[in-house]
This record gives sequence, structure tokens and C-alpha cells, in this order.
Amino acid sequence: MAVVVMKFGGTSVADVERIKNVARHVKREADAGNKVAVVVSAMAGATNQLVGWVNEAAPLHDKREYDAVVASGEQVTAGLTAMVLQSMGVKARSWQGWQVPIETNTAHGSARIAGIPGDDLRRSLDAGEVAVITGFQGVEPKARRIATLGRGGSDTSAVAIAVALKADVCDIYTDVDGIYTTDPRIVPKARRLAKVSYEEMLEMASSGSKVLQTRSVELAMVHQVRTRVLSSFTKPEDMAPVGAAPLESVGTIVCGEDEIMETQVVSGIAYARDEAKITMLKLEDKPGIAARIFGPLSDAAINVDMIVQNVAADGHHTDMTFTVQQAELARAVDVLNAAKADIGEFEIQSSADVAKVSVIGIGMRSHAGVAAQMFKALAEKGINILAISTSEIKISVLIDAAYAELAVRTLHSLYGLDAA
Amino acid sequence: MAVVVMKFGGTSVADVERIKNVARHVKREADAGNKVAVVVSAMAGATNQLVGWVNEAAPLHDKREYDAVVASGEQVTAGLTAMVLQSMGVKARSWQGWQVPIETNTAHGSARIAGIPGDDLRRSLDAGEVAVITGFQGVEPKARRIATLGRGGSDTSAVAIAVALKADVCDIYTDVDGIYTTDPRIVPKARRLAKVSYEEMLEMASSGSKVLQTRSVELAMVHQVRTRVLSSFTKPEDMAPVGAAPLESVGTIVCGEDEIMETQVVSGIAYARDEAKITMLKLEDKPGIAARIFGPLSDAAINVDMIVQNVAADGHHTDMTFTVQQAELARAVDVLNAAKADIGEFEIQSSADVAKVSVIGIGMRSHAGVAAQMFKALAEKGINILAISTSEIKISVLIDAAYAELAVRTLHSLYGLDAA
Repeated sequence: MAVVVMKFGGTSVADVERIKNVARHVKREADAGNKVAVVVSAMAGATNQLVGWVNEAAPLHDKREYDAVVASGEQVTAGLTAMVLQSMGVKARSWQGWQVPIETNTAHGSARIAGIPGDDLRRSLDAGEVAVITGFQGVEPKARRIATLGRGGSDTSAVAIAVALKADVCDIYTDVDGIYTTDPRIVPKARRLAKVSYEEMLEMASSGSKVLQTRSVELAMVHQVRTRVLSSFTKPEDMAPVGAAPLESVGTIVCGEDEIMETQVVSGIAYARDEAKITMLKLEDKPGIAARIFGPLSDAAINVDMIVQNVAADGHHTDMTFTVQQAELARAVDVLNAAKADIGEFEIQSSADVAKVSVIGIGMRSHAGVAAQMFKALAEKGINILAISTSEIKISVLIDAAYAELAVRTLHSLYGLDAA
Repeated sequence: MAVVVMKFGGTSVADVERIKNVARHVKREADAGNKVAVVVSAMAGATNQLVGWVNEAAPLHDKREYDAVVASGEQVTAGLTAMVLQSMGVKARSWQGWQVPIETNTAHGSARIAGIPGDDLRRSLDAGEVAVITGFQGVEPKARRIATLGRGGSDTSAVAIAVALKADVCDIYTDVDGIYTTDPRIVPKARRLAKVSYEEMLEMASSGSKVLQTRSVELAMVHQVRTRVLSSFTKPEDMAPVGAAPLESVGTIVCGEDEIMETQVVSGIAYARDEAKITMLKLEDKPGIAARIFGPLSDAAINVDMIVQNVAADGHHTDMTFTVQQAELARAVDVLNAAKADIGEFEIQSSADVAKVSVIGIGMRSHAGVAAQMFKALAEKGINILAISTSEIKISVLIDAAYAELAVRTLHSLYGLDAA
């Protein structure tokens, strides 16, 4: 008998028909004797409607009131899911954030989970009841006000519940059936990974693969929660319950690297098109110039990703290239121009027509030459590298957007990821 | 400085524009220095949508889950109203049933309010904050599950909050500007009543005037809460705040009869078209026959209103006529036919083509002859009376539906209610 947390996102509970499908997945686990906690998001579209009303009501709103309003969406799906389960003969009840309680800090609108006492919840599971818990929301225990965790927070709710219940697995049901070596829409030969490490998953998330929220992966990594990505669109009857078959027989398990026997050097190729490149030319090459540039950007809460600095031919000037989110490009340029008095003279060039392609794998730690292979292969295809950034288990290059698919396909083959 | 409870129903908060209008009413009271608690319903249509989902999910549902789902509508309007108030410079916060707390019994779906500790609420009001409270919902304190009060329960929430806060007035904002001597759509000469007693209001509610929920009037009567019916569609700027003008200058005050100086013999004419008549013919005239008829109806939760029994010409048989809600007519006939073994032989006739017209007034207690006048006036118009029922302050007659308007107009003139 296992303790299982099952999380279903907005598209999986988009209407009552879909909720009935979710309930069949849950019933499969309950019927197998597992203790089950279900975490649900709001119906797809519901949260957007609520946020729309909030913005219409008061553009500059009290975050606590925002939370009270938008948290109502999960309340609806939790109640509906519980009653559908009951109608299928499964003992179940709904739990709202304040009932569990899922305690948060006071950062309403993007709160962090502080703790989950959850004694009542455990008693309910021990009594054989399925717990259907509202994702995305908790309660700030001092003022007893509802707090939400920010967009996509339901993944984080699920992992936190799994920690509190010492669950054997935290199953995240999505609209994809696992984590792939790369985007199957670009590379038909992409393969589903049976296992991927937390670290790789984090690098993939920050490199464009938005299957899991970064926060939830971090939380899973810290507490070593085995997290599995599966599709809610797989027929409930076609899947074995937890305990009846190896977990890796379906979906992708995100786990510690010690659990991954045969580590590949590279496990995936990610790409992102939402970055933009800014190049500052003819900067005076003086000490502290980087701080004068990135200080104001940081003050304006603009995240900078890749940074490259070249010394110009004359030896007195320097060029600086870096990337920001496309949505923040215009604001970033404004911030830099406003800081001209401090930075000194420069010319600025920017482009949103770029793509970031990343090679990710824990195996890189013990394998030299991965980067060299990558640069050589791209050069052979005539793909120019605009910037490079690396971490211990990731190499990212910035290239012209037009070459993104070619680069992904080339690298996917290069590192032996193509399916037979 | 007065303590004011203001309640706004679903049509008054139907969208964000209407909520802004509500907020202007509230701001008027807050700016005048009054301590204000606002009770809001769900947006018109929202509760129906939620109930629709519930019925689609599980026709036979757990009432506690039903409550968790449908209570979400009020949560949304309370949050939106609070943030609109803040954006107008009014200190405000939302309160959900469990936060106040509004404690209920365990009768989920149609719970009764058991008590409102409300110390936090009072502290908030004392600090100059407007409290925006979700109507319709509370919390069952032992299991800490959300409980709803049943349809129209927000009126009851408002009166209960007024009791807890010892409010000077409980203002119920609706889509009509007060209680009228009769329906102005039928009698253009109908007059708005400045005051009406709790008892009269109760009789009016049970006779078809659904401005206030019966339960809320009963609660107001027991605790002597002065309750006022006003229109939220009156321009907020055209009304004086509580304390700046006599309460009776706008709307209708529902209060104790001791507050009503000049009691009229009749204060209103009500009518209802939702009843149906059942006549049982050729019943054996034996002791206990009434119990054999009304027992099974009562067991089936079918309410019987007016009852008339005649002895048939032969002296051994009797006829029985009574009314039930139209919606329950078919079920009532089924129940009676099923009880034939116990009741004995009978023939049954039924008709939904009837109307109940009622004359209501506390003055009747001290004035004889009201009924005689009524029967004479109806007879003069050729209107046949099918059944009669009376209380201390009400006389109701059942007539053919075709004569309903004529009867109402005739009686409205008869008792001097026509506006000059």
C-alpha cells in the first residue's frame, strides 16, 4: 500500500466530463488500496475570468482581496471532484487551503508555503478517505486570510502535500505523457525519458520546457520527493495503479541522480524563443562598467540571462551583449538609456529574433568535450553563435531564431538521443 | 454615529459596474462616519451555474461538497467589493463565513445560523474598516466545513450580522424601492408603505410578495432588528446616509408594530399564482379521514395550505378541497392514489388555474367585519370563492386565476389603499 499524491491541472478539470475522467484515475489508485491525496487546479479559464474581474474592479488591488477572489476557482473543482468520486463509490472529501491547513507566509499573490501541519488530513487518509485538496492556495495563519502561491502554484502545492504525507510518489498529471529528450513537434525522433534528475529538470524548466513549475522541482529536490509526470489523457484503465507495476513503466520520473542507473552524457535538448538580445557598443572600458549596467536592470526587476563581453579593437572600449525576456526588452532599453549619465556613452542594438538552445545532462560533469562537440556541430551547419552560457550540467547558446529547429535536430542526433 | 448593515443581492452585484455602484452606496455611509458591515450575494447567475455543475457532477451529492462549491460565488463578490471600496479610498476588507465566523448547525445546504462570535469583526469595525461579508454561507464549527443557508439565505445572514453587531438598522438593498400596498404592475395606484410590521411582512411573504425571505423576517422579529427595504438602483448620491435623515424618508421599514403610529386596518393586498387546488370527492365521512389524507402528504414533504371540508348531501360522505404548490401537484396526486387502501374510495379533481388573494393588516385584530366586507365586494364582482383561510392578521381566498387582477384591484380600493 502506497501513499500517492495526484495533481491535475486546469485542462484536466476543464469541465465536469473531464473531472469524471480525473475521478476514474483516482478511483484506480483508491481501489488498489493506496492512500490518495488529490490536488486540483481551477477549471481552465476560470482563473483568467476571476483575474479579469479583479483588474476591472481595481487595477491597483489589495493582494489579500485578489487572493480571496481567485482562490475560489480551486474550491469549485475540489468540491466537484469529491462528489464525483463519492458517486463512483469512493470515499472522498474536499479540503480547502485553510482547512488542511496549508500555511503560507504573508506574501499574498505569490506566497510561499511555510508548513503543513495536516494532522486532520492524515487522519482522514488513515480512515480510507480520498482527500481532494485545492491547489494554488493556502492560508496565512496569523491573520487567517487566504493566500495564493502565484501562477502554476498547484504543482508546488502537490509536492508540499507529498512532503507532509511522506508520499511514495507525487504524480503530476498534465497534457503530455512525460518529459522528452526534446520537443517532439520539432524532432519526431524525440524519446520519452523514463527518468530525469531534479537538476536536469530545473535546467530544462529554465531553458524553455515548462512542464513543471521550477518552484515545485526545487521543493521536490530539497525533500527528495519522487515526482512523476504523466498524462491525464491516457485512459485511466490503461494505467496500472502505483504498487502494481514499476513507476517508470509510464510517464517520466523526476528523481535524485543516484536513482538513475545509466546516466547519459546528455539527456535533453531544450530551446526557448522568449528571449531578446541587447548589445551595447562602444562602452568605455572602465572598472565597474558591468555593475553600472546590470545594477539598474536588477533594480527594475529585469532578469538578465546570458552575458558576453568583448574588448573592442581600440583597446579602450568594450562591447556587452546579454539577453532579457522579450516582454521586457523595451523596458530594459528605457532603463539603460535613463542610466546613461552613470554608464557613459554607448550605442545600443537589440533583437527579438533570437533563440536559446540548451544541451542538458548530469553526465556532463564527468565528460569533457561536450561543449567542443556542440560548437563544432553547429559550425558545420553554418549556425553562428551569438552568446554562450554554461552551468555544471548545461550549455546554452544564443543563435538566430531562423536556425532554432536545425540546431535542435542537429544536437539531438549528435548526442545519440534519436529514437531507433 | 450609527452601526449599519447593508445587504446587496445578486442583481445588485451582477457585474463589476454594478459592484462599483454598490460601493458608492457603502462609501456614502462610511463617509458619514457610520460603522458599516456589508453583506453580499453571488453575482446574479453565478450560483445557478455552480448548482448546474453540481447536478452534472453527481445528482445525489454530498451536501457538504455542494456547500463548498456553491459558497464560492459570494467569496468572489465579497473580495471584489472590498477592493473597489479600497480603490475609492474607503478602508475595507472581505470576510468569509469561516473567518467571521458565522457558525451554523450541521444541516448543510439549508443550515441555520447557531451564533456569530464576531469579536474580530467588531474590532475591525471599531478600527474604522468596512467589513464586506459573504452572505448565504457560514461554517459548521465542529468539522470546520462550509455550510450554506439555502436559497435567499443572504437576507438571513444580514439580519444575523445586524443582531451580532447590535446594528441600528439592517438595510436590504433590492431591485424594488420598498414594500407596496400591492403589486404596482397590477394596481398602478399602489402606494409604498413607509412602515410595515414584522407580522404583516411575514404574512405578505407567505402570500406571494417575495421581497424578503421569511426566515430573515422571523429573525428580525425575534431580535427586534429594524430592517429596511430599499433599491440599490436609486442613485447613491440621492440618498441621505443613516443618521442624517429619518429612516422612513426612503424605502420601507419593517419594524415592531409599536413603532407604527397610525395603524391601518389593512396595509396590503398580496396574491400568489403558484398554488394548485385538489378536490377529493365522495370520501367516506369517518373519524380520522383528515389524518389519513394529510399524513401521507406530510410524509412526502408536500406542504398543504388552504383546507376546506364539506359534508356531502347524503350525510355519509364528505368532500375535501385543499391547495399545494403547483410544482408538487402531480406528486401530491400520486401520493394520494398510493394511499387509497388507507383512505378508502374517492374521486379526485385538480386544477392549477387558481389564484390566492390575501388581505393583510395588523389593524384587523381590533376591527371586526373585514372579512365580511371582503366577501361582499368579491361577490358583487361575481367572483366565486373556492376556499378561505385566515390568520389573526390575514384573510386569504382562493379564486379562479382569471379573476386575480380584478380581485386585487377591487380589494385595494375597498380598504382605501389607492393613492390619491
